[in-house]
Amino acid sequence: MTIPTEGRRRVIIESIAPQVDCGRFPAKRTAGDLVRVEADVFTDGHDAIAASVLVHREDSDKWIEVPMEPLVNDRWFAAFGVTEIGRYGYKVQAWVDHFETWHRDLLKRIKADTDAPVDYLIGADLIAAAAQRAVTINGGGGDAAWLHARAAVLRSGDEPKSLRNHATDPMLHELALRYPDKRYATDSNELILQVDPVRARFSSWYEFFPRSTAQKPGAHGTFADAEKLLPRIAQMGFNVVYLPPIHPIGRQFRKGPNNNPNGQPGDEGSPWAIGAAEGGHKSILPKLGTIQDFRRFVETAKKLSLDIALDIAFQAAPDHPYVTGGHKNWFKERPDGTIQYAENPPKKYQDIYPFDFESEDWQGMWTELKSVFDYWIEQGVTIFRVDNPHTKAFPFWEWCIGEIKREHPEVLFLSEAFTRPKIMYRLAKIGFSQSYTYFPWRNGKEEIAAYLNEITKPPVTDFFRPNQWPNTPDILTEFLQMGGRPAFVIRLLLAATLGANYGIYGPAFELQENKPFKHGSEEYLDSEKYQIRQRDLDAPGTLRPLITQVNQIRNTHPALQNDISLRFHYCDNQQIICYSKESEDRSDLILTVVNLDPHFTQAGFVNLPLEELGIPADRAYEAEDLLSGERYMWRGPRNYVELNPGLRGGHILCIHRRLKVETDFEYFL
Amino acid sequence: MTIPTEGRRRVIIESIAPQVDCGRFPAKRTAGDLVRVEADVFTDGHDAIAASVLVHREDSDKWIEVPMEPLVNDRWFAAFGVTEIGRYGYKVQAWVDHFETWHRDLLKRIKADTDAPVDYLIGADLIAAAAQRAVTINGGGGDAAWLHARAAVLRSGDEPKSLRNHATDPMLHELALRYPDKRYATDSNELILQVDPVRARFSSWYEFFPRSTAQKPGAHGTFADAEKLLPRIAQMGFNVVYLPPIHPIGRQFRKGPNNNPNGQPGDEGSPWAIGAAEGGHKSILPKLGTIQDFRRFVETAKKLSLDIALDIAFQAAPDHPYVTGGHKNWFKERPDGTIQYAENPPKKYQDIYPFDFESEDWQGMWTELKSVFDYWIEQGVTIFRVDNPHTKAFPFWEWCIGEIKREHPEVLFLSEAFTRPKIMYRLAKIGFSQSYTYFPWRNGKEEIAAYLNEITKPPVTDFFRPNQWPNTPDILTEFLQMGGRPAFVIRLLLAATLGANYGIYGPAFELQENKPFKHGSEEYLDSEKYQIRQRDLDAPGTLRPLITQVNQIRNTHPALQNDISLRFHYCDNQQIICYSKESEDRSDLILTVVNLDPHFTQAGFVNLPLEELGIPADRAYEAEDLLSGERYMWRGPRNYVELNPGLRGGHILCIHRRLKVETDFEYFL
Repeated sequence: MTIPTEGRRRVIIESIAPQVDCGRFPAKRTAGDLVRVEADVFTDGHDAIAASVLVHREDSDKWIEVPMEPLVNDRWFAAFGVTEIGRYGYKVQAWVDHFETWHRDLLKRIKADTDAPVDYLIGADLIAAAAQRAVTINGGGGDAAWLHARAAVLRSGDEPKSLRNHATDPMLHELALRYPDKRYATDSNELILQVDPVRARFSSWYEFFPRSTAQKPGAHGTFADAEKLLPRIAQMGFNVVYLPPIHPIGRQFRKGPNNNPNGQPGDEGSPWAIGAAEGGHKSILPKLGTIQDFRRFVETAKKLSLDIALDIAFQAAPDHPYVTGGHKNWFKERPDGTIQYAENPPKKYQDIYPFDFESEDWQGMWTELKSVFDYWIEQGVTIFRVDNPHTKAFPFWEWCIGEIKREHPEVLFLSEAFTRPKIMYRLAKIGFSQSYTYFPWRNGKEEIAAYLNEITKPPVTDFFRPNQWPNTPDILTEFLQMGGRPAFVIRLLLAATLGANYGIYGPAFELQENKPFKHGSEEYLDSEKYQIRQRDLDAPGTLRPLITQVNQIRNTHPALQNDISLRFHYCDNQQIICYSKESEDRSDLILTVVNLDPHFTQAGFVNLPLEELGIPADRAYEAEDLLSGERYMWRGPRNYVELNPGLRGGHILCIHRRLKVETDFEYFL
Repeated sequence: MTIPTEGRRRVIIESIAPQVDCGRFPAKRTAGDLVRVEADVFTDGHDAIAASVLVHREDSDKWIEVPMEPLVNDRWFAAFGVTEIGRYGYKVQAWVDHFETWHRDLLKRIKADTDAPVDYLIGADLIAAAAQRAVTINGGGGDAAWLHARAAVLRSGDEPKSLRNHATDPMLHELALRYPDKRYATDSNELILQVDPVRARFSSWYEFFPRSTAQKPGAHGTFADAEKLLPRIAQMGFNVVYLPPIHPIGRQFRKGPNNNPNGQPGDEGSPWAIGAAEGGHKSILPKLGTIQDFRRFVETAKKLSLDIALDIAFQAAPDHPYVTGGHKNWFKERPDGTIQYAENPPKKYQDIYPFDFESEDWQGMWTELKSVFDYWIEQGVTIFRVDNPHTKAFPFWEWCIGEIKREHPEVLFLSEAFTRPKIMYRLAKIGFSQSYTYFPWRNGKEEIAAYLNEITKPPVTDFFRPNQWPNTPDILTEFLQMGGRPAFVIRLLLAATLGANYGIYGPAFELQENKPFKHGSEEYLDSEKYQIRQRDLDAPGTLRPLITQVNQIRNTHPALQNDISLRFHYCDNQQIICYSKESEDRSDLILTVVNLDPHFTQAGFVNLPLEELGIPADRAYEAEDLLSGERYMWRGPRNYVELNPGLRGGHILCIHRRLKVETDFEYFL
C-alpha cells in the first residue's frame, strides 16, 4: 500500500450508528424525531480528542455541526432534531485537540505543583494559533484579539500565580475550543438519513372494498357510496383508509366466488386481476365511478384527516392493455407463442400474467410502472400498499421508490410481503416505509415477545417499520376462527398497543367474521376478494365501540405512537402478557396487560422494573384503566391482575408517575 | 437516483462472512485452514438461484470458483483450503438459474401429471442456450454437441414417456448446470483474506533477558551466553524466543535498579531507553556482542526450530542518534528549544522521547521506522513484539505492517497494547498478527469464560488473535504474588490450554518469582528491566518439568493449537473451571479442568454436552489425564473431579471417542 497523502489524521472513527448495511441504505426516522448518532472515537496515546456530527439536508450545502459527548468505552454521541421530511447526509468528524490536552494536563501539573514556565509558553503558542484561526474564520473579531492578548500574557513571564489564573480562566477554555485545529481531522463516510412523515411511524389503517358499500341490496358499490363511509371511519379514530385495487378487472379466466376457476357471466372477479378493455393500472373500474368520483372521494377523506392508501399490484390480466396493446415483451413469451401465466407448479393462475423483470425492454417497463405511482400521486394519493413486492425485482423497487421519494418525500409505501425474513428486511432497506409482519401468527407469550423485540429494536428499526394486522382479506387466522369474540378483542388490543402502526380489514373485523372457506384454510368463506359482500355494519355485537375507544387512546397517548420504547415485563401466568411503552419525553407511560386465552379467566402477578420505568419504589402509584375508567392504586413491583375474556380482553393502563425528561436539544434541522 | 445500466441483476447478496468492518480490513486465517465463506443470497419470486465463491491470490488473475450450498434462512456457504501464506481476494457471485427452475418445476408437473408439450419446448430452449455457452467456453466440445442433441429430442414432439425420460436424465441436469447463464449475475464487492503462517495461530513464547545469561557471576551476558540457553528452551517445547530490546541504552537520565530515577555510573539501565552514541534501533548494545553474534544466535535458534521475536519499541533516549544526528524534527520541540520527554502528568519520564506523529517530516519518519523492521528481517528475524503500539499513530502501523507483509508475508507482529478494548481491536485490524490480552487479570470462572468467549469467536477471531501470558516483566499479578507455587501452576495450565498462543517471562516464571517491588504494585522487586538478574535455573522446585510436559501436550495435540473450538462446560463448583477444545477434523478432543483456588482442595461434578461433543451417551468413554497418565472411565454427562492444589492444579484430559470428520474439500489454493 502506498503512503497516504496525509498520515497525520490520527483519530479513528468506527461503528457509527445508525448505519444500515455499512451505509449502503439510508437509516429511517420521522419528522420531529431527535436523531441520536453514536460512534467509537479514539486516538493513539494520551491526547485529548473532540468529535462532532456534521449534518445537512441532502439538497443543501449548509452543514450544521453538533458537538459529540463521550459516553463510556470510547463511545461518543450527539443528538439533533429533524423537523422536515426529506433526505439528510451526516458524518462524524474527529480530531486531536492539543489545546484541550494542554489545558487538562496543566490542571494536573498545577495540582501537583509541578507547572513550569515552559508549560505557559506551550499554552501561549496554542492560544495564538487559535487566535489565528479566529482571524481566518471571522476576519479577526473580538475573539481573536482576546486570544492574542491572552497568549501575550502567558508569554510575559509574569509571576506564577497570575500565570495560573490566566491559563485556567474558563473564558480562555471556551474561546480557544471555539476555534479548534482541524488540519488533521478525520472525516467518516457520509451516511444518509431518510426522514419520513410522522404517519410512517404512527398510523391506523382501515381496509374495505368500495364495491361492497352500495346501500341497495345486490348493487355494485361506487366511490360515492364509499364516500359515505368515510365520516364513520374517521369517527372510529382511523387515519388511513386502504382500498384494494380499483382498476378494471380482467375478463379472461375471471374467477367466480370462492376462487372458483370457472367464473360465470355476472361474476365481479378479483380486483387483483388487473386490466381489461377499459384500461389498466391508471384506470378506474367503471362500476366504481370516474376519476372525478375518485378525486372527490380523496378530497372528502382529506377533509376528515384520512389518508387514502391505494393497493398497487403489478400484474396483468390477459386482457390488460399492456398485453393487448404492444407491451407483450414485458411478459415472458413461451415457445408456443402464448404468454406465461402465474404458476406455483402444479398450481396454475391463468387469470394473471406476471411481469418479466428480465425483459429486453426492462427500462421501458420500469418507467411505465413508476408512472403508475406518479399518476395516482397526482390524484392525491400519498400512500401505496404494494401487493407482493417480493415477486418483482429488488433493483426496480430501489430505483422506483428512490425516484418517487426524491420528488415526493411525503409518499409512503407499505410492503405486503409475507415471505422469508431476509426478503422482508431487504424490501424495507430499499425503500418501503412500512411492512406487514408475522404478527397474525404469533399468539403465544414467548413468541410474541421474541418477535416484537426483534422488530422494534435497532438495528432493525433503523430500516424496518412493522405494521400489525390481526386480519386481512387473505388472512383469517386459526386463532380468530376458533376463539369467538374474545379472540378478536385480544388481537385488536395486541395489534393496537404493540404496533404504533396497525390496521384491520375493517367490516369483517368489526363483525367478527370468522368462517373459513374450509377447515385448515385461512381464506374467508365467500371471500370479498371474489364477490360483493354487503353487510349491516350496525349489527348488534359489533366491535365498533371498542375499536373506537382503542383508537382514541392511541390518538391521545404518545406512548402508543412509537414502537422503540416497547418493553415486555414478567407475569407469572403464562397466558398473561404484559408490556409498556412510553413517549420520548417520558411524560406518558402506558402499560398493557392482555389475557392471551380467549376461553378462560386468567390471573397472576405482573412484575414491573420500577426503577427503569421511573416509578418511585416507596410510594403508591395510580394505574388508570383507559378502557374501563377504573383506577387502581398499585404499590411496589408486584401487582395482581385478573382478566375474564368474556368481560374484557385486557387492560390499557396509564401509569401516573409525574416524570418528564427535558429533551430540549440545541440543534435542529 | 438514475436508472442502473443493468437492472436485471435480480439476485441479492448480503452479510458476507468473514468480513471485517464492512471489508475495510482483511479477514485473517492461517495456512492450511479451510476457509468457510457464508452469505445471505436470495432473489425475488420463485426462481431457483445458484451462487459461488470466487477466490484468487491477490497477485494472480487466476480465480477459482467454489460452488456454494444453501443452509437455512437464505444463508449459503462454501469452503476452500488455503495452503500458502499471503493475501487472497474473494467475492460471492450469484445468479438466477432458469434451467434449474425449469427442471425443478418439471419434476413437480410430472408428479402431478400436468406436464404439457410446451414445457419441453421451454426446456429445449434453455438446453440449447447452455450448449451455446459450452461452445463459447470450450469451443464446442462433446458437452455442446450432447446438449444440442438433447434439445433436439425435447423439441421432437416424441411420446410423453420418452420426453419425460430425456428431460429428467441426471446427465442432462449435470451438463446443463455446468454452463450456467451468468449474464445477469450479481457480484459482491471483493473482500481480502490475509493468510498467515501457522505460527500466528499456534505459538509458545519464552521471554528472557540476554544480559542475565552470563555464567560468570556479575558479568554482563552476551548473545554467546544466551545461545547456550536455546537448546534448553527448545527441549522445554517452546517455539518462539522473545528478547527485550537489544539496542544501545541511553545514558542521559538512565534509570537505576528498581526504576530509580537517579541512576549511578555502572547501572545497566533499561533496554527500552533506546539509543546512545553507539547507535539506535538498528544497532546492538556492544556488551551483548556484534551483529555477527546476533546472526549466529538466530541461526542456532532456527536449527532448533525456534523463531526469534525481537522487541521493537519506537521511542528514543535523549542520546539516540535520531535526536543528536539531525532528526530532532521527529520529536516535539518545546518553545524553550528542549525536546518533549514522555509524561503522564504529573509523572515525568525524562529518559524517553516519544516520536511526534504530527511531525512535518512524518513521511521521512515513517520510512525510517519501517526500515528498522526491514533491517532486522534481513538479519533473520521473523517475529516482532511491538512495544506500546497504541501510543503511535494508527495510520502508520497500517501502512508499515501492510508494506512489510506484502514483501514478507511470513513476518508476524505481536501487539503489546494493554489498553482499552477498541484500541486493542483496532491494532489487530490494521495488521498486528497477535495481541496480548487481559488474561493476566481474569481469575474468576465467570470472568474467564466471558472474556475468552468474546475473543475466541467470530467476528473478533476474524481479526484478533489472543496471546495469553500469565506474567511479563511488567506484570506480576496479585494472584501470582499471593498464591504460591499452586498459583503459577494454575495460571500456566490456563494460559497454555486456553490460548493456542501463550507465553511466559520464562526464568521468573520457572522459579516462581513473586516478590513485588512494593505492596500493591505489579512490578517485580529488583526488576530485570533495570538490572542484571542471574539465576540458578536448575534450582529445586522449578516448574520446568511441568512446563515441558504441558508444551509437549500442546505440540502433540492439535486440539490445543486453535482457539475457535474453545467451549466452556458446567461445573457445580464455582472454583472449578472446565472447558474443551478439539481439532478441526474432530479427531482430537482435550478437556481441561482447573481448580482456580490455589489454597484449598475443590471437588465437584462437571457436566458435558455429550451430543455436541460427539460422545455416545450410552457407553463409557475414556478420559486420559495427559499430565498424570491416569485413565478414568467416565459414563454419561456428569463426572466427578477433585483437585488438591498442593498436588496438582488441574487435569488435561484426552477424551477418547473415535470420531473423525472428513474435511476432504475439493477446492484448494
